[in-house]
Amino acid sequence: MHNFTATYTDQYQLAMAQVYFKNGQKDNTAIFDYSFRKLPFNGGYAIFSGLEDLLEIISELRFSEKDLEFLKTQGFDNDFLQYLKEFRFRGTIYSSAEGDVIFPTRPVLQVEANIIEAQIIETILLNLLNFQTLVATKASRIRLVAGESQLLDFGLRRAQATGGYFATRAALIGGFNGTSNVIAGKNFDIPLSGTMAHSFVQSYDDELTAFREFAEGRPEKCVLLVDTYNTLKSGVPNAIRVAKEMEERGEQLLAIRLDSGDLAYLARESRKLLDDAGLAYVKIAASNQLDEYVIKSLLEQEAPIDIFGVGTNLVTGDPDGALDGVYKLAWAGGKPRIKISESIIKITLPHKKQVFRLKDDNGNCIGADVVGMFNEEKIEEMYHPFEPYKTMKISSYLHEPLLKKVLEDGEVLIPKRNLKEIAEYSAKRLAELPKEYKRFNNPHIYKIGISKELKEERDLLIKNFKNSI
Amino acid sequence: MHNFTATYTDQYQLAMAQVYFKNGQKDNTAIFDYSFRKLPFNGGYAIFSGLEDLLEIISELRFSEKDLEFLKTQGFDNDFLQYLKEFRFRGTIYSSAEGDVIFPTRPVLQVEANIIEAQIIETILLNLLNFQTLVATKASRIRLVAGESQLLDFGLRRAQATGGYFATRAALIGGFNGTSNVIAGKNFDIPLSGTMAHSFVQSYDDELTAFREFAEGRPEKCVLLVDTYNTLKSGVPNAIRVAKEMEERGEQLLAIRLDSGDLAYLARESRKLLDDAGLAYVKIAASNQLDEYVIKSLLEQEAPIDIFGVGTNLVTGDPDGALDGVYKLAWAGGKPRIKISESIIKITLPHKKQVFRLKDDNGNCIGADVVGMFNEEKIEEMYHPFEPYKTMKISSYLHEPLLKKVLEDGEVLIPKRNLKEIAEYSAKRLAELPKEYKRFNNPHIYKIGISKELKEERDLLIKNFKNSI
Repeated sequence: MHNFTATYTDQYQLAMAQVYFKNGQKDNTAIFDYSFRKLPFNGGYAIFSGLEDLLEIISELRFSEKDLEFLKTQGFDNDFLQYLKEFRFRGTIYSSAEGDVIFPTRPVLQVEANIIEAQIIETILLNLLNFQTLVATKASRIRLVAGESQLLDFGLRRAQATGGYFATRAALIGGFNGTSNVIAGKNFDIPLSGTMAHSFVQSYDDELTAFREFAEGRPEKCVLLVDTYNTLKSGVPNAIRVAKEMEERGEQLLAIRLDSGDLAYLARESRKLLDDAGLAYVKIAASNQLDEYVIKSLLEQEAPIDIFGVGTNLVTGDPDGALDGVYKLAWAGGKPRIKISESIIKITLPHKKQVFRLKDDNGNCIGADVVGMFNEEKIEEMYHPFEPYKTMKISSYLHEPLLKKVLEDGEVLIPKRNLKEIAEYSAKRLAELPKEYKRFNNPHIYKIGISKELKEERDLLIKNFKNSI
Repeated sequence: MHNFTATYTDQYQLAMAQVYFKNGQKDNTAIFDYSFRKLPFNGGYAIFSGLEDLLEIISELRFSEKDLEFLKTQGFDNDFLQYLKEFRFRGTIYSSAEGDVIFPTRPVLQVEANIIEAQIIETILLNLLNFQTLVATKASRIRLVAGESQLLDFGLRRAQATGGYFATRAALIGGFNGTSNVIAGKNFDIPLSGTMAHSFVQSYDDELTAFREFAEGRPEKCVLLVDTYNTLKSGVPNAIRVAKEMEERGEQLLAIRLDSGDLAYLARESRKLLDDAGLAYVKIAASNQLDEYVIKSLLEQEAPIDIFGVGTNLVTGDPDGALDGVYKLAWAGGKPRIKISESIIKITLPHKKQVFRLKDDNGNCIGADVVGMFNEEKIEEMYHPFEPYKTMKISSYLHEPLLKKVLEDGEVLIPKRNLKEIAEYSAKRLAELPKEYKRFNNPHIYKIGISKELKEERDLLIKNFKNSI
């Protein structure tokens, strides 16, 4: 589907890289943090997604001959282009596990590499992680309200072009069961689902013939779309007739699908008609601008819907559209580095770091991650990053280190999991998170603390800077 | 960048196709309309984008051997797979020109092909046209307020994964001048732009050294990012020093870039500092969560900003995320086809059609498009699609036919234009549209009418259906 080359980047990465190269900085080790500032959907958590594919892509990223010819036309120097010809990412990446629950303002992933390689991969890393994390989080919220219902991704036609391919991958990690997207199904080994379009019904002179021919042509997993003309007067009665004919052939109609009108009312009335006809096994699928709020409402009304097809709102991460992930320098030239900002939340954390999830003796999350220096193993007390009087003793809690080495010298270290395994891991991690962080309205705020040592290092850099101007 | 195969589709397209194939419908000619229901951004128009690339992709769409092996595992029949092996799109497409201003509820494009081929291309057609039209429209709104300022797309890091590649293409059609996206720049021949990241400044022990080395390493089109530590106390004074050093070498600093804080205030203060230093030629670039509203406000405050870098809000089409384009059957089996719906706006228009833009004798748009039967050349009177008492005499206006044959027997008929040509065409068409359709608040509603003949044909189908149940 995609042929990524190292030109999947921003022009300024290459402009900076050329300067580093010419100034003899090409072996300068840098450490960058990937983190985000704001949880999407006004929620209480996010689901980290996109990592395992990204690592594979990064390990194979090169400039092609054509790329280099193009860059020559853009004013890049010959010796630098010669260097890019040999480019491959040879650094190390420490990361949270794909599927884990993650929170703002703390490193989700750390890149340690020479500054040129670290800079060139920034764009693709942000591009793929920001979006997949957004969609996996959306999917997870939909899964939370949908209980055991089947959830299917129907979004490709309204997706942001080929972003839809990655949206489908992320949807599975967030808890969806299948997709209509054939190429994503093929490449990511995702169960394919689908029903029929209105056009199929329209293309026949009458609905009954359309249903009949569809059931004969695709009897397995047959789903009939019942709202092309009139759901209760035409669609459901015709579907019932065809279901009965299928029974005579030893087949079973899988479901009917509602795609317009009041879904709660139509589902209830359709269920009655089906049950009265002895078709209790025929499921009801629903679609049409669904999201976590609509599905929650439908299920609160006890609408007898078994399968939800979710499209636009899932694959575009509506209403947020983007996770605001950033990639910030924490170390270079043998020294810790910081970015000062008038906006306090934009002040960065210097140094190579580790992040710990705090748990009680029973292994339950206490609702806090703490960021320490990379070599810290246990932290006595954690500080609020920007409110120095907010502190908390944490030495009695278990410290689970979250950043693991996942790629070294450009080689992926972790075994590749399939999406089902990542989704199961994600569900397990989400289950460890107390309910109050998962509610939609005003969720409890998960704490992010920093260690005393990290705080002192950061404050020293801020002080030094203030003295310098 | 992309390797599209015909599996870039929804599973149900193939399920329906198999049924059509088995029932001997493979040569059944169908006509589908592409249209959308709601203008994005509460605006008064949309800019049609995505067409010319799409036509090329469609003309080359095939199933690979691997695709067919995969589909075999999904329960598709051997004879149908054999048919898919020979698949190529051999139909005809009539379309509005890429870059034209378009409006809801009337056909933007029409596909005439055998029903299997028409169905298989539906997904990729909607996927690429919906998204690029969304972003081109957003870009056009930003261009409208930005006047002669430079507009640069900086969005790839926050784009919806590889959707960002197409967002960049659409941004250029909507009126942007350049992009930071290297691979899109390379493949679509778009001017590349870029500045530097905060990390570059941070990686040096002091800002002045960072600026100096950057200016020496990339003197052409050099832009210095001045907000890493303190814009007015540190960033701008250091940029001025480096600009003076560049002058001594016979070079010129192109611009400084502001990326945080109050952009109106900082731009004004920075402008003063630059002007006082005799650097009136150094431009000011601004970025940070910009959109059409922020840029409008900045320019109303007379903020002296010459270059705007727009990211997330442009490339994700915020706040809409998707254009609600649909693909509806109008003809099949030698007969006109219709979809009835409880929601009146979802009732479709049957038959092969033409769309005319009405103009006065001076060639000015009068604010209406009218949809007629394909063979109508001049329409006397137009009807509101759903309010039969709203009619308007239009025989005195020029009728500009909008749907042109762009692809026939699977071959692209129109010469490929570069993005600059499409953008120029788009600007010209937008200029023909009166101002009241372009304002942001409550824009005037562009009229879409239908001809008497089309109305009667549609009403007859509705009546026939109502009699049948």
